Amino acid sequence: MAIAKIGIIGASGYTGAELMRLLCRHPGVEVAYLTAHTYAGKEVDELYPHLHVYRGMRFRAFRPREALEEADFHFVALPHGEAMEVVPPLLEGGARVVDLSADYRLPDPGEYARWYGKEHSSPELLSRAVYGLPEFYAAAVREARLVAVPGCYPTAALLALGPLARRGYPLEGCVIDAKSGVSGAGRTLSLSAHFAQADASVKPYGVGSHRHTPEIEGRLAELSSRPVRVNFVPHLVPMSRGILATCYLDLGPEASPGDVASAYEEAYSASPFVVLLGEGRFPETKCVSGSNYCHLGWYLDREKGTLVAASAIDNLVKGASGQAVQCMNIMMGWEETLGLEAPGLFP
Amino acid sequence: MAIAKIGIIGASGYTGAELMRLLCRHPGVEVAYLTAHTYAGKEVDELYPHLHVYRGMRFRAFRPREALEEADFHFVALPHGEAMEVVPPLLEGGARVVDLSADYRLPDPGEYARWYGKEHSSPELLSRAVYGLPEFYAAAVREARLVAVPGCYPTAALLALGPLARRGYPLEGCVIDAKSGVSGAGRTLSLSAHFAQADASVKPYGVGSHRHTPEIEGRLAELSSRPVRVNFVPHLVPMSRGILATCYLDLGPEASPGDVASAYEEAYSASPFVVLLGEGRFPETKCVSGSNYCHLGWYLDREKGTLVAASAIDNLVKGASGQAVQCMNIMMGWEETLGLEAPGLFP
Amino acid sequence: MAIAKIGIIGASGYTGAELMRLLCRHPGVEVAYLTAHTYAGKEVDELYPHLHVYRGMRFRAFRPREALEEADFHFVALPHGEAMEVVPPLLEGGARVVDLSADYRLPDPGEYARWYGKEHSSPELLSRAVYGLPEFYAAAVREARLVAVPGCYPTAALLALGPLARRGYPLEGCVIDAKSGVSGAGRTLSLSAHFAQADASVKPYGVGSHRHTPEIEGRLAELSSRPVRVNFVPHLVPMSRGILATCYLDLGPEASPGDVASAYEEAYSASPFVVLLGEGRFPETKCVSGSNYCHLGWYLDREKGTLVAASAIDNLVKGASGQAVQCMNIMMGWEETLGLEAPGLFP
Amino acid sequence: MAIAKIGIIGASGYTGAELMRLLCRHPGVEVAYLTAHTYAGKEVDELYPHLHVYRGMRFRAFRPREALEEADFHFVALPHGEAMEVVPPLLEGGARVVDLSADYRLPDPGEYARWYGKEHSSPELLSRAVYGLPEFYAAAVREARLVAVPGCYPTAALLALGPLARRGYPLEGCVIDAKSGVSGAGRTLSLSAHFAQADASVKPYGVGSHRHTPEIEGRLAELSSRPVRVNFVPHLVPMSRGILATCYLDLGPEASPGDVASAYEEAYSASPFVVLLGEGRFPETKCVSGSNYCHLGWYLDREKGTLVAASAIDNLVKGASGQAVQCMNIMMGWEETLGLEAPGLFP
Repeated sequence: MAIAKIGIIGASGYTGAELMRLLCRHPGVEVAYLTAHTYAGKEVDELYPHLHVYRGMRFRAFRPREALEEADFHFVALPHGEAMEVVPPLLEGGARVVDLSADYRLPDPGEYARWYGKEHSSPELLSRAVYGLPEFYAAAVREARLVAVPGCYPTAALLALGPLARRGYPLEGCVIDAKSGVSGAGRTLSLSAHFAQADASVKPYGVGSHRHTPEIEGRLAELSSRPVRVNFVPHLVPMSRGILATCYLDLGPEASPGDVASAYEEAYSASPFVVLLGEGRFPETKCVSGSNYCHLGWYLDREKGTLVAASAIDNLVKGASGQAVQCMNIMMGWEETLGLEAPGLFP
Repeated sequence: MAIAKIGIIGASGYTGAELMRLLCRHPGVEVAYLTAHTYAGKEVDELYPHLHVYRGMRFRAFRPREALEEADFHFVALPHGEAMEVVPPLLEGGARVVDLSADYRLPDPGEYARWYGKEHSSPELLSRAVYGLPEFYAAAVREARLVAVPGCYPTAALLALGPLARRGYPLEGCVIDAKSGVSGAGRTLSLSAHFAQADASVKPYGVGSHRHTPEIEGRLAELSSRPVRVNFVPHLVPMSRGILATCYLDLGPEASPGDVASAYEEAYSASPFVVLLGEGRFPETKCVSGSNYCHLGWYLDREKGTLVAASAIDNLVKGASGQAVQCMNIMMGWEETLGLEAPGLFP
Repeated sequence: MAIAKIGIIGASGYTGAELMRLLCRHPGVEVAYLTAHTYAGKEVDELYPHLHVYRGMRFRAFRPREALEEADFHFVALPHGEAMEVVPPLLEGGARVVDLSADYRLPDPGEYARWYGKEHSSPELLSRAVYGLPEFYAAAVREARLVAVPGCYPTAALLALGPLARRGYPLEGCVIDAKSGVSGAGRTLSLSAHFAQADASVKPYGVGSHRHTPEIEGRLAELSSRPVRVNFVPHLVPMSRGILATCYLDLGPEASPGDVASAYEEAYSASPFVVLLGEGRFPETKCVSGSNYCHLGWYLDREKGTLVAASAIDNLVKGASGQAVQCMNIMMGWEETLGLEAPGLFP
Repeated sequence: MAIAKIGIIGASGYTGAELMRLLCRHPGVEVAYLTAHTYAGKEVDELYPHLHVYRGMRFRAFRPREALEEADFHFVALPHGEAMEVVPPLLEGGARVVDLSADYRLPDPGEYARWYGKEHSSPELLSRAVYGLPEFYAAAVREARLVAVPGCYPTAALLALGPLARRGYPLEGCVIDAKSGVSGAGRTLSLSAHFAQADASVKPYGVGSHRHTPEIEGRLAELSSRPVRVNFVPHLVPMSRGILATCYLDLGPEASPGDVASAYEEAYSASPFVVLLGEGRFPETKCVSGSNYCHLGWYLDREKGTLVAASAIDNLVKGASGQAVQCMNIMMGWEETLGLEAPGLFP
């Protein structure tokens, strides 16, 4: 296997650090460069002692030409709004890019402007960007030069609802009650991620206004070929990692447990990272901690016709950096699971 | 103010300990006796060092005659199934009783048998028991000799949904996604309450089968005068105390923010323990920790007609022992807030 | 009882909020004003929803004349360096002041400058300031016009070691290994108090350089009438509140368990907030959470002559705001426990 | 590389599960059998959903003959007292054994009886057992047929103190203040590992009586060639994994920072799992979570001559199962790091 030289742009944030953690043991890659605006010049293991295998390596400023010379494959782990400044020159230079920001997830530049409060600076690339959820878009990912890794909430929600969307089950008005660990807020300091405020507490946030809503609705619409509106409410939970998405759908009296089970089994028969727990057995986030797996369980109330489906992922792995590596594996023609086989860290 | 002599039966569990914590500073009561089966003979502060004000006092076995001689008012903090063995003799002895178990919450003995797997041994008392949610049943509580304190989940759910039920909003099929701290499982050891398993994890449990479902549905039906079925899923969250109930209702396109606000304001204008945060502002459980308050916020999506309402309580206080004291205050003709004024412990 | 009008300067930080929490139920005081630099104009319950009893009250800027007109008693909850700017005008105006900062804790201005990196602006007041640890300095506190509330670590350490110092036990070189909840770092954002970094982790910090070292050494020297140097290492522990100070002393082969016990019993016979657990029984921080109590246990290894003594307090209560209120009670000639009787919040 | 067939006896506890987690990705082994007394017949992933790679594999009862037929190498993850029942037949059958229990850690059967309250049933094996701390005993481990993996606390303490012991620094009377995550108590239910009791709290336990004391003292004596008595106090900290051992030693006025640094550097120059952070930089447990690394930092107070040295490990990995695998690697002549390269899971 040829070794790919990769670079990480915006490596000092949590998704960048998680890419470093995953890639240092990936047999197919060599980490060629790491950039970080604020921390340029600083050693990696000064910021992240757990990454002492990078001892001696320093963050540096991003310079497109240098990046293109040193690496063939680039992960962009910048905040939204900044990613779209570095992606175009990399693509123009012939490189392949996996972007973990929100900048290339929404196909419509108008929608981007509406939700992210800023004009898109490279709208022409939106149609070329492939949505990096391999469980549903693997074929397109394989051919892509630019992959937009889904948000953490959309990943959890779509893995629970996508198979039902594809089968044509009615999703309109479904409820997605999501619970996330605090690392989802990133490394940027804020009062809501301040330990004494977040510890021992649960709270909803972004009700009616979370930016992952259009992403979820757009992809569910695509998978089900009809418009879908969802009621999505994220919550902060006192743990560092993990998302649990509990989804509620009214499938009507005709829905059968067997149909639901077969929808999931069919959808994920070739998906190495989705573990079906089966009906009546529900996931817990700790079981997927640090891993790229998604655990999925559901329950159909025969009387009411209501389906409760819950998915658990690690927001920094399957919800971000692990999924980015999974996409890279597919783009490189490698085994999808390469470097991502670690089970969850439990207990 | 005359001092009431009170006893706590089943004082060694968490709701018993919480009663002791609240009552040691209550100006109207004197704790006359404490019973505990397993710990009979043991000193209180050996089990609960934080209750050293009880130093010298011992748990003892329950004997009805003794209890009736020593106290006028009795709190029963036994597990369901055991409470119904001690309540009848106390009532027959002329005492007033507040029961924190599930034994007198469901008016229908058949339903009790169905959900709790056991015939009710004093079904004739069910019609005399008053449901101890003062925000909706204060008048009946005032006259009651037997009050059944609601479950922690029903308290949170009914405080969020009760005002809407009363106004006739359609509740059928609404979603109640509840997140609870682990103390809700009580002091009894179990793998799901084992630290290493529960820490840093979120998980649903009891999906489709939680015993609080019929309690919620029954009271919502009573308040709205029509049958209601809900989709209630409880979750375990890595914190000791607190419940957040996030409720989702389809109110239809005609619902107006003003109507919703006025439903809440009217319902709770005389309720000292319900704090309305207003539309668009949501509660966090830590703000009510250790207190008898319920924080309540909501958001009406004008386009979709969906209402998200979330309530936060401390499961051991407003969800159990604090509410029991609140009922006693009302039964005794005292100020409803007596001994319960402490704000939440934050941060 | 006459009601004292009090003011809190720097009310928006955690110790300020904790003062508000404790004082809203204190029968002897009326909160006359609250100041906060950054949040001037903002409503209290916008910042701290758990303090909704203050609804309608706003933080404002500090103006000495206004403060002196409106209140007789002032709590200063500002960061060190800022407190010494507001204390002198208050004292000159004839008011009594309890300062929670470090500004008046060290009697020697040179030492202050050395450890806090700044010249003291009112060194003449240092000799008039009384160290507000009532368990050892109650008589002086009673007469004081300016009380300097001890730091949280010194409070925990001195309660464990003070009785031994007084008895003349050799303390030189003793080890104080302290574990603190993250709220000790205050409300100011920092990476080490960022949830994802602090959660599920323990770490030492400030080794060899923590500013509480000279405070501990100075007071132990005072109590034992000889110089004392200690090995003090604080640690951050993933919980919001609480300090556990584990102290190790070599008492030599002649030390007897009875002597140690009597040292503690004698020292605290009149101290309502110190709970002696006795030999071989050790405290846990949760038992004092939210309370002004200190739990204290110890063990003397007869063979080695080593004493292990451990104290647990809530850093925001007995380690700061509760102790400030305790001092006020004494200064006002009230019952020392007034408004501070709440037991710890457990579990 | 030849594949070794291994078995795990007592696989259902946390150290067993951790062995399974580590070994499923180890390139040199095939897991041949798993035994568990209580769970015999149960599927692995029913108990541990994170180990779904073992789907289809069941725990079974231990039968020596079967074990010897199916595997060449055996990990014993039973409680102390039970391990010594299964080890002798395995050794007699010619197999190599790594025992994670305490049964073969103390060379003296009398000491075993004194601390573990039970006569040793195979005292003749004690002299043949090698103490499995490769950083100090690698040569002996290489030749061993029976390795006794150190306890989690001894591992942390010896990694911090061993290099100093070897250099002849005076360790007598040193303090080892250790803080452990709750998984150290294992999977067995207990009140002190009950979530609501352990959460948000720190407490010492086993003061003066913890069974790891003789193990630490014995090995330090061995490394320094003189008797050593330590003051070891373990604490429970509200996190699942991790141990931090903070050690305090009086090195006297002649100690120099350079000597201390060189003691550590020399001792660990060939140790791939010990990461020296250097003087003045201290470890945090989260950085080694899930990994086999030990992070080590120290600070020498030049004035006092006191050294503070702190080590952080994951109690289930370097403190148990990871160290067991490390020993196996050495015994098999493999790269010491095989299957153990994963960095810590942070944040």
